Amino acid sequence: MVLPRVQVKELRRTYGFEEVAIVPGDVTTNPELSVPSFEIGPYQFTIPIMASAMDAIVSPAFAGLMAKAGGIGVMNLEGVYGRYEDPQSAIEEVRAAPRETVTEVLQKVYTVPLQERLVQERVRDLKAAGGVVAVSVTPQNAKRLAPLAVEAGAQIIVVQSTVTTARHISNSYAGLSFSDLKAEVNVPVLIGNTVTASATLEIMEQGIDGIFVGVGPGAACTTRDVTGMGVPQVSATMECAAARDEFFARTGKYVQIITDGGIRTGGDVNKALAAGADAVMIGTPFAQTFEAPGQGFNWGMASPHPALPRGTRLNVGASASLEQVLFGPSRRTDGTHNLVGAIKVSMSMVGAQTIKEFHEKAELVSAPTIATEGKIFQRAGQI
Amino acid sequence: MVLPRVQVKELRRTYGFEEVAIVPGDVTTNPELSVPSFEIGPYQFTIPIMASAMDAIVSPAFAGLMAKAGGIGVMNLEGVYGRYEDPQSAIEEVRAAPRETVTEVLQKVYTVPLQERLVQERVRDLKAAGGVVAVSVTPQNAKRLAPLAVEAGAQIIVVQSTVTTARHISNSYAGLSFSDLKAEVNVPVLIGNTVTASATLEIMEQGIDGIFVGVGPGAACTTRDVTGMGVPQVSATMECAAARDEFFARTGKYVQIITDGGIRTGGDVNKALAAGADAVMIGTPFAQTFEAPGQGFNWGMASPHPALPRGTRLNVGASASLEQVLFGPSRRTDGTHNLVGAIKVSMSMVGAQTIKEFHEKAELVSAPTIATEGKIFQRAGQI
Amino acid sequence: MVLPRVQVKELRRTYGFEEVAIVPGDVTTNPELSVPSFEIGPYQFTIPIMASAMDAIVSPAFAGLMAKAGGIGVMNLEGVYGRYEDPQSAIEEVRAAPRETVTEVLQKVYTVPLQERLVQERVRDLKAAGGVVAVSVTPQNAKRLAPLAVEAGAQIIVVQSTVTTARHISNSYAGLSFSDLKAEVNVPVLIGNTVTASATLEIMEQGIDGIFVGVGPGAACTTRDVTGMGVPQVSATMECAAARDEFFARTGKYVQIITDGGIRTGGDVNKALAAGADAVMIGTPFAQTFEAPGQGFNWGMASPHPALPRGTRLNVGASASLEQVLFGPSRRTDGTHNLVGAIKVSMSMVGAQTIKEFHEKAELVSAPTIATEGKIFQRAGQI
Amino acid sequence: MVLPRVQVKELRRTYGFEEVAIVPGDVTTNPELSVPSFEIGPYQFTIPIMASAMDAIVSPAFAGLMAKAGGIGVMNLEGVYGRYEDPQSAIEEVRAAPRETVTEVLQKVYTVPLQERLVQERVRDLKAAGGVVAVSVTPQNAKRLAPLAVEAGAQIIVVQSTVTTARHISNSYAGLSFSDLKAEVNVPVLIGNTVTASATLEIMEQGIDGIFVGVGPGAACTTRDVTGMGVPQVSATMECAAARDEFFARTGKYVQIITDGGIRTGGDVNKALAAGADAVMIGTPFAQTFEAPGQGFNWGMASPHPALPRGTRLNVGASASLEQVLFGPSRRTDGTHNLVGAIKVSMSMVGAQTIKEFHEKAELVSAPTIATEGKIFQRAGQI
Repeated sequence: MVLPRVQVKELRRTYGFEEVAIVPGDVTTNPELSVPSFEIGPYQFTIPIMASAMDAIVSPAFAGLMAKAGGIGVMNLEGVYGRYEDPQSAIEEVRAAPRETVTEVLQKVYTVPLQERLVQERVRDLKAAGGVVAVSVTPQNAKRLAPLAVEAGAQIIVVQSTVTTARHISNSYAGLSFSDLKAEVNVPVLIGNTVTASATLEIMEQGIDGIFVGVGPGAACTTRDVTGMGVPQVSATMECAAARDEFFARTGKYVQIITDGGIRTGGDVNKALAAGADAVMIGTPFAQTFEAPGQGFNWGMASPHPALPRGTRLNVGASASLEQVLFGPSRRTDGTHNLVGAIKVSMSMVGAQTIKEFHEKAELVSAPTIATEGKIFQRAGQI
Repeated sequence: MVLPRVQVKELRRTYGFEEVAIVPGDVTTNPELSVPSFEIGPYQFTIPIMASAMDAIVSPAFAGLMAKAGGIGVMNLEGVYGRYEDPQSAIEEVRAAPRETVTEVLQKVYTVPLQERLVQERVRDLKAAGGVVAVSVTPQNAKRLAPLAVEAGAQIIVVQSTVTTARHISNSYAGLSFSDLKAEVNVPVLIGNTVTASATLEIMEQGIDGIFVGVGPGAACTTRDVTGMGVPQVSATMECAAARDEFFARTGKYVQIITDGGIRTGGDVNKALAAGADAVMIGTPFAQTFEAPGQGFNWGMASPHPALPRGTRLNVGASASLEQVLFGPSRRTDGTHNLVGAIKVSMSMVGAQTIKEFHEKAELVSAPTIATEGKIFQRAGQI
Repeated sequence: MVLPRVQVKELRRTYGFEEVAIVPGDVTTNPELSVPSFEIGPYQFTIPIMASAMDAIVSPAFAGLMAKAGGIGVMNLEGVYGRYEDPQSAIEEVRAAPRETVTEVLQKVYTVPLQERLVQERVRDLKAAGGVVAVSVTPQNAKRLAPLAVEAGAQIIVVQSTVTTARHISNSYAGLSFSDLKAEVNVPVLIGNTVTASATLEIMEQGIDGIFVGVGPGAACTTRDVTGMGVPQVSATMECAAARDEFFARTGKYVQIITDGGIRTGGDVNKALAAGADAVMIGTPFAQTFEAPGQGFNWGMASPHPALPRGTRLNVGASASLEQVLFGPSRRTDGTHNLVGAIKVSMSMVGAQTIKEFHEKAELVSAPTIATEGKIFQRAGQI
Repeated sequence: MVLPRVQVKELRRTYGFEEVAIVPGDVTTNPELSVPSFEIGPYQFTIPIMASAMDAIVSPAFAGLMAKAGGIGVMNLEGVYGRYEDPQSAIEEVRAAPRETVTEVLQKVYTVPLQERLVQERVRDLKAAGGVVAVSVTPQNAKRLAPLAVEAGAQIIVVQSTVTTARHISNSYAGLSFSDLKAEVNVPVLIGNTVTASATLEIMEQGIDGIFVGVGPGAACTTRDVTGMGVPQVSATMECAAARDEFFARTGKYVQIITDGGIRTGGDVNKALAAGADAVMIGTPFAQTFEAPGQGFNWGMASPHPALPRGTRLNVGASASLEQVLFGPSRRTDGTHNLVGAIKVSMSMVGAQTIKEFHEKAELVSAPTIATEGKIFQRAGQI
């Protein structure tokens, strides 16, 4: 029997942070000359770092500290802040839950309904704390909550879910038009998360101002285990940044690309920027600050999902001030402190004085830091 | 001396579950719209999940529960169910064996001869438990046992061995013609396992209804250590699914592809489906249910092999109900609970409302989740 | 400044046992039809397995047992057998050495000089034990010892060092001409080790009968750590086997390719054969037999090197009879028992009835069994 | 909507020591014929090994021992030797610091200012210890300190920082012209570190005599974690060596390439040389000698960085004499002793009698020694 030839397509190789490195350049500069600034619409930020919209990280007070530091903290309006008069008590309940039942406790805590009154009150709290007020909602609730938030003083609207596209099909709620939302709220709108050039282009066509890149890579999120979905962050960022560049060349509008998830060290931040990100959104390193409301604990917003929880509460430990994490002086050498210093040094090593120059001059190479046998047993001896 | 040039052929790269990820799509849907149904011949199933024909998993009672849940449990007629009046006592003997001698106990338990009377009695037990009756036999015994099983009420015949081909050469028994078997039993016949397009095509040419894909990947099976044989599941599924598509385009007959082995999480299930499977066959996650007859223990059907045992009895622990494993609510976040929910969410993230749409829309990328040094020592600190 | 373009050559990818798998075929056979025989010159062997010329493995008695089993044990004439009246006492001394000083003890034990009288006496011991007498010497001593050995009854001469080539440059001893040696001893001569097609071709041109493939992969050898030299076994075997095929097509002389080193399981044996080996040479699995003179300890012949010891004494543990390791019945499921059964099953899964058919029909694919994070922590919980 | 096609560039694959192996050649030689000599300007060295300019390694006494052994120890003029009357007391302070506060202690120890008088005194100490006097300075201080050092007797000037280029942009100090520096000091000048062909070419154009290759790979340095910068050593060396060859072909001037960082074993040394290095610079293996001033402790010169410390103090343990590390006799088999013996054996296995012949004859292949599951648990059982 002569069998027909069956062809199987090749799989495209994608890369995560631990698999790449940045090549030093032919010109170097002094780190003092590096200016890693970032802007969203009319707002300028001196550091390209956003704090994740997670309940254990961004309270109004924490957002105020982020603003003072030159960055942005995004508060999740649909977390405990929009559900509880005393959000910290809900956080304490999660913190106190025994490990065995924490998923149930998380699920229970988040069944308390959202209150529009609280949503607006929290926005006012943010405003009082100072800085540009940035809040996040899910696509399902964006049409209802975003205008309320803007009315109360929100200056940046983030619409975020695990995967968000410009074309969502649903029976239970009418699809969200990003361009309609943008027209209604009339403030910068950022959408996420996505990981492909095509989805990014479709979102950009609707006139939004920024895109969050990242599905499945975060420490407090197990989307990839649970669903198999995800693209490693370096490749996802490269692809979405290429879409941004194409869109900019074609339309003259520059849309911010923000890599969100899986970032632990200054090295990770720099790799995201080298891959084309304009800024990064960070969770765990901020959850580890003394100032975070979770006080050493953290959980993702998909963790309390009633049917399909992804991720859980992690005991990440509070071990440094926000100041140390962002600017040092560092007392640790694993790259988790002085993230801004690390950005400046990295920029200086390729001779870049702005993030845009960093995009142009930083070459990434495939350089896996795999666990070799030798290293495992060498270190095992030291532990 | 001028040496001749010697050419060595390149090795084709193959992929397992842990080396790929599914890329989110440009359109998303609400998970409620996802309908992951599956059919074998005239039978419809609401979930694309089969329970493995392993003694510690599919008893008649368990098969009834699988049917109620919308899937299929396949009972192995050549295991303890076809050999013992009281199969549970044989299972208890294996469960109770000390670790050092368990392989000997397994070998002994399976030397008790098959009884045709018991084979038929068990099929009637399955029928009594409800649902479509599916049973498995080996190629060696198929001609003898399959007609007996159908006579007693079996509705689907599975012919399964580690590697099964349409052309088997033997001195000790006449080769099995799948088309003859199919003509004789006149019910849907599924054959496995295979891992290549060519072997799949040859089997499909004989008129059978489904193919099991998977050699060597299962947790309770060490075929690959013992023999070196095997193809990682994602590549094997992609290849066999491509053969199915070619065969369908040429003949109009759609043969079901069922990925069997190595599946632990919802992410694994989704990757198998994204690679082209119509359904999956699962062992370990069901062995971990309270309802499984092995009550927390599991072993493969190659484990008791008298001369070349592959795999052994594993203590996998019973930790959830079948309901939780299939539909949640999940109390774990590692992807082992709520497999059907995970399928629906994954389908929704690529905008697929049926498994066939999922085949078309889900792109797999190479995205290794290798153990990096950092992760190993980071986690080691948490254990 | 316009810089010239500098080009760096690509590195060729090579594969070890743990990185490949064998694809099942389109035809299968019953394992009983598999005949994995092997021949060296006029001598026929029923199994394609040689025991390594290591002191802790092949004593005259062990060689006799290997012969009865259908294979070959090669005795090292330059080890303790050619140096001590009572070789077992020297072995005991190594066994008893404390871990901290074992390299020194090894170095000391092997400073006792070789005695030509003992060399011949040991060959006679081998003859008395039965089977085809095979002994090994180093290239430096081959001209002196090989004729003595043949005079005493040796039937196969193995000339082995870490890396052996047809063109060796030395000030301290005249280069060894393999063709002269072959002419003088007039018995089959096997040379090793090598890992490339070109070196293999040069050796074959000199009329020898077999080639050992393998530099640096053995468990008791750390050549690769110490020197950086080595080619993983699957690629090395593929290359040397391709050279054999080219040489056979050109000259009609079939030279045996024997993969030597790094083989632990039936899977490894099968991968070596699938890569083109006619037989394998095995150390550790035999050192683990009750019959091995090392009684659970093993060390390589480069371990006692006075200046640059490579490898050390390993406590591998004696846990099975030679019969079990070769033919089962297996009481273990990790692939270390019943190596011949594993060969037969693997041959049957690609429909091969001889090793040559296996060469033709077995396809290897790249299928890394890397340590993924999940697996490490899953198993860590079980330890 | 028709989306434009967005293209993402492929990432270049780079290799570290643990991912490559050296292929044995078609000609072998006796190790006694291997002459691994090295030269810098008018100075000849019998071994191609430099000791790293780290405070815990190269004191004047240690440099004298390196010279006697045939190599070179480079003293860092900007470490404790140029800051303290009694440098050993500063080293003791670092050694005695508790683990929790060691970064702070390091930062404090290095705030004591450099003294020009001490810089010159240390150079005279080096001269008194014998051998060619080699000292290192940073680019910032080179113009001031290098002439002072030469005046006091320094014969080789090393200008070293994490990343050094021929074009550095700074506000705080005027850029360093390597050609001006070279003209002024009129001794051999070596520059580092770099990892690319282009940066290497630019430095060579300025007339310097040697290049250090390596960013981010060292055991006592965490530059890659902290900043993401780095290229694995084998690829970096291949690229810089290719630049050297291009420059030599074009200008007739041969510039030495010295691989610096990440070298632990003889295998690593040989891989660096096979990749094209003329010599290696080594840290950890020398820090582990009884003669090193750190007495079992080591730290990098970026560890005390006030804002962005990279690396920390490591307890590497003093376990052998410098003699044993360089020439054996080895009592260890992990490749950390008898580095020169390992070089000679490796050269002999490819038939090379000089380092230049080794460059021509040694082929590197990609051969990852990744941690496989099996190996991890096999070894875990032995620990």
